[in-house]
Amino acid sequence: MVLEQPPVIINLSPTITELEEEHDLFQVAVEQFLIAADVLGLDNDMRKILSHCQREVIVNFPVEMDDGSVEVFTGYRVQHNSGPGPTKGGIRYHQSVTLSEVKALAMWMTWKCAVVGLPYGGAKGGVQVNPKLLSQAELQNLTRRYTTEIQPFIGPNQDIPAPDVNTNPQIMAWLMDTYSMNVGYSVPGVTTGKPIVLGGSEGRNEATGRGCVFAIENAARIQGLDLAKSSTVVQGFGNPGSVAARLMAELGSAVVAVSDSRGGIYNPNGLDLDAVSAHKARTGTVVG
Amino acid sequence: MVLEQPPVIINLSPTITELEEEHDLFQVAVEQFLIAADVLGLDNDMRKILSHCQREVIVNFPVEMDDGSVEVFTGYRVQHNSGPGPTKGGIRYHQSVTLSEVKALAMWMTWKCAVVGLPYGGAKGGVQVNPKLLSQAELQNLTRRYTTEIQPFIGPNQDIPAPDVNTNPQIMAWLMDTYSMNVGYSVPGVTTGKPIVLGGSEGRNEATGRGCVFAIENAARIQGLDLAKSSTVVQGFGNPGSVAARLMAELGSAVVAVSDSRGGIYNPNGLDLDAVSAHKARTGTVVG
Amino acid sequence: MVLEQPPVIINLSPTITELEEEHDLFQVAVEQFLIAADVLGLDNDMRKILSHCQREVIVNFPVEMDDGSVEVFTGYRVQHNSGPGPTKGGIRYHQSVTLSEVKALAMWMTWKCAVVGLPYGGAKGGVQVNPKLLSQAELQNLTRRYTTEIQPFIGPNQDIPAPDVNTNPQIMAWLMDTYSMNVGYSVPGVTTGKPIVLGGSEGRNEATGRGCVFAIENAARIQGLDLAKSSTVVQGFGNPGSVAARLMAELGSAVVAVSDSRGGIYNPNGLDLDAVSAHKARTGTVVG
Amino acid sequence: MVLEQPPVIINLSPTITELEEEHDLFQVAVEQFLIAADVLGLDNDMRKILSHCQREVIVNFPVEMDDGSVEVFTGYRVQHNSGPGPTKGGIRYHQSVTLSEVKALAMWMTWKCAVVGLPYGGAKGGVQVNPKLLSQAELQNLTRRYTTEIQPFIGPNQDIPAPDVNTNPQIMAWLMDTYSMNVGYSVPGVTTGKPIVLGGSEGRNEATGRGCVFAIENAARIQGLDLAKSSTVVQGFGNPGSVAARLMAELGSAVVAVSDSRGGIYNPNGLDLDAVSAHKARTGTVVG
Amino acid sequence: MVLEQPPVIINLSPTITELEEEHDLFQVAVEQFLIAADVLGLDNDMRKILSHCQREVIVNFPVEMDDGSVEVFTGYRVQHNSGPGPTKGGIRYHQSVTLSEVKALAMWMTWKCAVVGLPYGGAKGGVQVNPKLLSQAELQNLTRRYTTEIQPFIGPNQDIPAPDVNTNPQIMAWLMDTYSMNVGYSVPGVTTGKPIVLGGSEGRNEATGRGCVFAIENAARIQGLDLAKSSTVVQGFGNPGSVAARLMAELGSAVVAVSDSRGGIYNPNGLDLDAVSAHKARTGTVVG
Amino acid sequence: MVLEQPPVIINLSPTITELEEEHDLFQVAVEQFLIAADVLGLDNDMRKILSHCQREVIVNFPVEMDDGSVEVFTGYRVQHNSGPGPTKGGIRYHQSVTLSEVKALAMWMTWKCAVVGLPYGGAKGGVQVNPKLLSQAELQNLTRRYTTEIQPFIGPNQDIPAPDVNTNPQIMAWLMDTYSMNVGYSVPGVTTGKPIVLGGSEGRNEATGRGCVFAIENAARIQGLDLAKSSTVVQGFGNPGSVAARLMAELGSAVVAVSDSRGGIYNPNGLDLDAVSAHKARTGTVVG
Repeated sequence: MVLEQPPVIINLSPTITELEEEHDLFQVAVEQFLIAADVLGLDNDMRKILSHCQREVIVNFPVEMDDGSVEVFTGYRVQHNSGPGPTKGGIRYHQSVTLSEVKALAMWMTWKCAVVGLPYGGAKGGVQVNPKLLSQAELQNLTRRYTTEIQPFIGPNQDIPAPDVNTNPQIMAWLMDTYSMNVGYSVPGVTTGKPIVLGGSEGRNEATGRGCVFAIENAARIQGLDLAKSSTVVQGFGNPGSVAARLMAELGSAVVAVSDSRGGIYNPNGLDLDAVSAHKARTGTVVG
Repeated sequence: MVLEQPPVIINLSPTITELEEEHDLFQVAVEQFLIAADVLGLDNDMRKILSHCQREVIVNFPVEMDDGSVEVFTGYRVQHNSGPGPTKGGIRYHQSVTLSEVKALAMWMTWKCAVVGLPYGGAKGGVQVNPKLLSQAELQNLTRRYTTEIQPFIGPNQDIPAPDVNTNPQIMAWLMDTYSMNVGYSVPGVTTGKPIVLGGSEGRNEATGRGCVFAIENAARIQGLDLAKSSTVVQGFGNPGSVAARLMAELGSAVVAVSDSRGGIYNPNGLDLDAVSAHKARTGTVVG
Repeated sequence: MVLEQPPVIINLSPTITELEEEHDLFQVAVEQFLIAADVLGLDNDMRKILSHCQREVIVNFPVEMDDGSVEVFTGYRVQHNSGPGPTKGGIRYHQSVTLSEVKALAMWMTWKCAVVGLPYGGAKGGVQVNPKLLSQAELQNLTRRYTTEIQPFIGPNQDIPAPDVNTNPQIMAWLMDTYSMNVGYSVPGVTTGKPIVLGGSEGRNEATGRGCVFAIENAARIQGLDLAKSSTVVQGFGNPGSVAARLMAELGSAVVAVSDSRGGIYNPNGLDLDAVSAHKARTGTVVG
Repeated sequence: MVLEQPPVIINLSPTITELEEEHDLFQVAVEQFLIAADVLGLDNDMRKILSHCQREVIVNFPVEMDDGSVEVFTGYRVQHNSGPGPTKGGIRYHQSVTLSEVKALAMWMTWKCAVVGLPYGGAKGGVQVNPKLLSQAELQNLTRRYTTEIQPFIGPNQDIPAPDVNTNPQIMAWLMDTYSMNVGYSVPGVTTGKPIVLGGSEGRNEATGRGCVFAIENAARIQGLDLAKSSTVVQGFGNPGSVAARLMAELGSAVVAVSDSRGGIYNPNGLDLDAVSAHKARTGTVVG
Repeated sequence: MVLEQPPVIINLSPTITELEEEHDLFQVAVEQFLIAADVLGLDNDMRKILSHCQREVIVNFPVEMDDGSVEVFTGYRVQHNSGPGPTKGGIRYHQSVTLSEVKALAMWMTWKCAVVGLPYGGAKGGVQVNPKLLSQAELQNLTRRYTTEIQPFIGPNQDIPAPDVNTNPQIMAWLMDTYSMNVGYSVPGVTTGKPIVLGGSEGRNEATGRGCVFAIENAARIQGLDLAKSSTVVQGFGNPGSVAARLMAELGSAVVAVSDSRGGIYNPNGLDLDAVSAHKARTGTVVG
Repeated sequence: MVLEQPPVIINLSPTITELEEEHDLFQVAVEQFLIAADVLGLDNDMRKILSHCQREVIVNFPVEMDDGSVEVFTGYRVQHNSGPGPTKGGIRYHQSVTLSEVKALAMWMTWKCAVVGLPYGGAKGGVQVNPKLLSQAELQNLTRRYTTEIQPFIGPNQDIPAPDVNTNPQIMAWLMDTYSMNVGYSVPGVTTGKPIVLGGSEGRNEATGRGCVFAIENAARIQGLDLAKSSTVVQGFGNPGSVAARLMAELGSAVVAVSDSRGGIYNPNGLDLDAVSAHKARTGTVVG
């Protein structure tokens, strides 16, 4: 098969950590900002203000492990700029989370909200932990204690977390429950991405992958590409990647290759995505 | 003159920054703690908890300069351990302040309160600025904005600042006034080291130097030295150094040498401290 | 006249108190819940949690009577489950109000909100008093003091009262005014069922009766009954009963009998409801 | 030229101060209210309550001038009636602001909100200052300090300022920023009339002038006048006056005369409003 | 009898209102301050700040009278200067209370606290009412509503009322109870001068009269007068006047004349104060 | 051995539950109060108020057990009267805790504080649980969740818990830590009876037993008994019982019998209390 046009490559793998080994991520984010600032002709004062994060909170907190021992974890919550309104941004659990990474992500949240006109500033949080090494009980203990520690800095009018890498609706439910217990009544507005039964938004699960495809559609329109004649390659077949793959297929694009952290698969005539998803649900990977 | 015993050397110069160029100061503090923990036989969980700071807050805030431009400064407030009660610790203004230094100083405040049985945990704050380059108006603007930024984390029942390197009763008065204005009524308890007319403690000005001499007296008693026959050398003739020198002289010790950042002076028969202080007040240094 | 089908019987008389003489009302509510839990297949943990009320507050408070003496009244506010959001439920004034009754009603409010998908948990309140024995001044004093006592537990984001048996928009206005005075500014969201001029909802007066008829219409549709050919009997011709009667008549049903606590009237050809209402407004009963 | 009908005269000049020299403005407002109360048949208790302002706050606060000296300014914030909901009203900066004037304006805000059915009570604020004598830095200092002083009495659920005479979106931005800094997170709802980029409403700039023309259109309709055949005279060619003039011209009315505090201009065939505005922008007046 | 020295004249009658008819009382207070400022050599900025009251709150609030009608009363609470700590000052009920009077009294409270070194700023409050025309029930209603209205501005750490002209421990008990009810728990520190059983201070009842005699003793000592040989005249035989008279008698001074608002009595050999007090308790005056 | 006088019998066994099987404990407490009220001649209004508890809070809360299942526990916190100041009273964990018992204990705390003149009102709390069936982890989970549920009602200025039956310094430490975590800083004043290292009072451990002996000494003095010639019997050799026994022995009384829930021991010549305590520490009982 001869491709008339190069495939649409959707890269959703979390390669930040590799990058970061060589570069300070926040420094990268500031440099990006300064390029944009030149384009926008921002004055010097505004550049100084926007190239810093307003508030960076680091909390070190003990968690009881299942074996009765105590581990101390380091958590972050950074608010880049509260000018436009409450700040907003996810919380990630990853062994390589650093303050610099969280600061960069908080800054990017400000830009993301600004380009679509949402009245939010950017924020981000994280805990330095490999959640795959924790039991559910430990994960719950960690989430509840981290929530209590950052409680003075978050809230529906102040700073609103969301799920991110390795966090999910269950973790947001624990966060919301902890916050609500501590103030003495239910506060659903303290987080987004909570389970729908607790007031979460419908469609949020697919939102990241769908937004990715919205961007592809607009890019294709501007460049005059016909997606129905395109092929698609997805690097990172997790939640957003698999949603994006399915939506590209619905637009008529042949999804010819997908990969995850264990490897990739390729079929020049297009993969059977239902079969791939079923395989991944069963084995944990698209490979094999 | 032949000295019968080596002089008492009082070193009060802020040599932390030189040290820090080679070592991470918080790492030094943790190592010191672990040595003490071995002596105390502390269990592993307690070591993990106490070798971290509970809460570290970094704020980046704009200040309007006298020429109308804006500078963004980085301030810190670290609370090491709130177990014993409200946390307590000074705020320093210095161009080489780092998070690691503030964390180390906060930890040391916990130990200092604990060894004398005060029901306080340790804290410390700082702003990365060379205050000697600022006008009084700029210094006031910086102090008021920094206070506003850390306001949610301090208070009479929570965390109580104090003067430290390059901060003084005037700066504590601005801090207290800003905090009080923001809550709508006067809160003298939000800081110590404020001017006596605003409720500051008598004797606080001399407290650091006097505490230093208390330690010397106890050490001399234990080692069987007679301070009345001793001589004294003071490195760092600032507020605590000049007070310590005067008190050593009152105990009968000959203060034979004093120095500051510009150099030192020596008189084997003992210096005339009133004359030295007057000279320093006039010229800014003990030299010349 | 031969009825082709048995009449629609609308029973709105407050017979709870009779029932309660023999049964503990909350026990009844829990048993109902457990039947539903079996149908839903709820797990054991969830059954335990939902068969209790989260928070039950009892307040005993003095009220000055018109003759200058003091009476102490017992009031309740129970919040069954705040999981779905703020809790919501009426306040009743009745001499036979008990904690058990208020708990049962709070639990039922959770189910009522849940079946129609409202993001509220259930709550209920009450004061043990026969309001018909109080003057308006005493009723106002009692309402204002009861409101002050439960003020820490209610609020627009926390728990929102409403009128119930023997309470009305005037009492909600006193409640809202007391709450607002105490916090220092107007808080219309602290209660529903207030007078329209203070921000109450239009249509609320008819809402209970109308909801009753909505249920009848749906039941008739499912059972294939033609309401236009039906007759209606209303037991309890108070606010909801008279509204339901009027709406049934608008649907073409002949309202052949209505009753209140003093007795009932019957006309096989249908009653003139305007005349009945006018009679009741004048004499206090439908009888005679 | 013979006018078929007298011109529409739009008077937007701030002649309150002249009036006030002879009359106490709040007394005037109460007398107006009592006339309306007679028409409405209000009872005596309601007249007593509504003819007073609930809360009148006077603050005297120091501001540092550019030359280092301190001036003490007097500011007001009056809340007439919080019954309908949060109170709402502008803040004016004028050398002749008095408590009586601010009280009258607060009362009028209650009536203005009531006649259009907005769930707000009336409020008003002001500072006794001639803002034209202040530098931008002094104006900012004054605004930030005044905001801090009235902070306990305002807020999105309590009392919401807006621009008024000599205040503008920039001043509201300082107010919002001061309030937000003091509480520690962004509170856009604390004021209306802020810059659109901070969450201000589109169309607000033209709202006062447009509302004026809405009133004229309704009056003309009722009186059977044809505005397309009318001529218009505008006294006070500031923001609302120039907007009203432009909108009247769009309705076909010939704007034959406009004036400001320095004088007026007249052209029986209608003025070129773009030219007039350009002239005023350049010279500060319509004259010359 | 020939007096060797003129009598000590103790004037405690509330003649402020007469004075005020001719002078604005706050203007008088400012002029006094400026004389003292000259003596102290205060700089210009400090004069400007101290010659104003920081915060002046006026509240107009409805009270239900015994006959069911509503009266609207005007209350004041003025805080002159919160620099030294919480503000402190009495609340008076008098038909001639004005804002100017309350401001003057608040300023004087600052000076009174300062001269004896108490860490309080000055405040004062008042309600424009002739309490002698109110029943106890009306007085209680008025006090409770006034307390609620000024509640946001008072509190143990903020501003602490006390009894003054026509207010007493009972009124302070109502104030404390209202404040406590509104926050939901007991706050004894919100007022001084409450009944001893509620935590009031012993000796407070006699404090004003005793302080007066302390001043006389010091004046006599400085002037070399022997009080045991003096005679005393007391104008205003209310609480402080009768206490002062008794204490002067205990010091050996002959109290030869006392007066109240109805007239005076004179006995050159000294009055029998027990008899005078008993007469006044029975008849309401010293006359007759 | 012939006793010259009957032995002092100290009964500290928790026999409340047996009593309660037959009587409603709060009813007993009210009856006691009414007897005292007759002696004191209390008026009717005061009797009505004091024979009720101001606020009774019941919380039902889930706790995760070690096996992963959930149990729902019922906790109480009752505040009898906050008139004298903050309320104060212990928290007990017992399977037979009822609302009536907690109400009675809260009322008795008011009387206990009043008779010794402490400025506290009475309160009491409890959880219906047999703590001996819980692991330490479960006990901690239960304590932390109960604390969170009653958090809105307690605090240093509001209501201050303490240890009681089956609760101890460790449990108070968990309570204080939970409260402190939730507000974000250390609040040692939220409870008494915490470990001394966290700010607990020295001597508190012995306080109950010592108070018991103070009462005995006073009774003996009034009755003319010589305790040095007495013998003592202690029923309930727990914390207060063993302390009381030791103190009675120090006063010269022969402690001839002690018992606990498993039985008793008797030695007419006096027991060796150190040996008894050591036996109990080893075996859990005085018997055997």
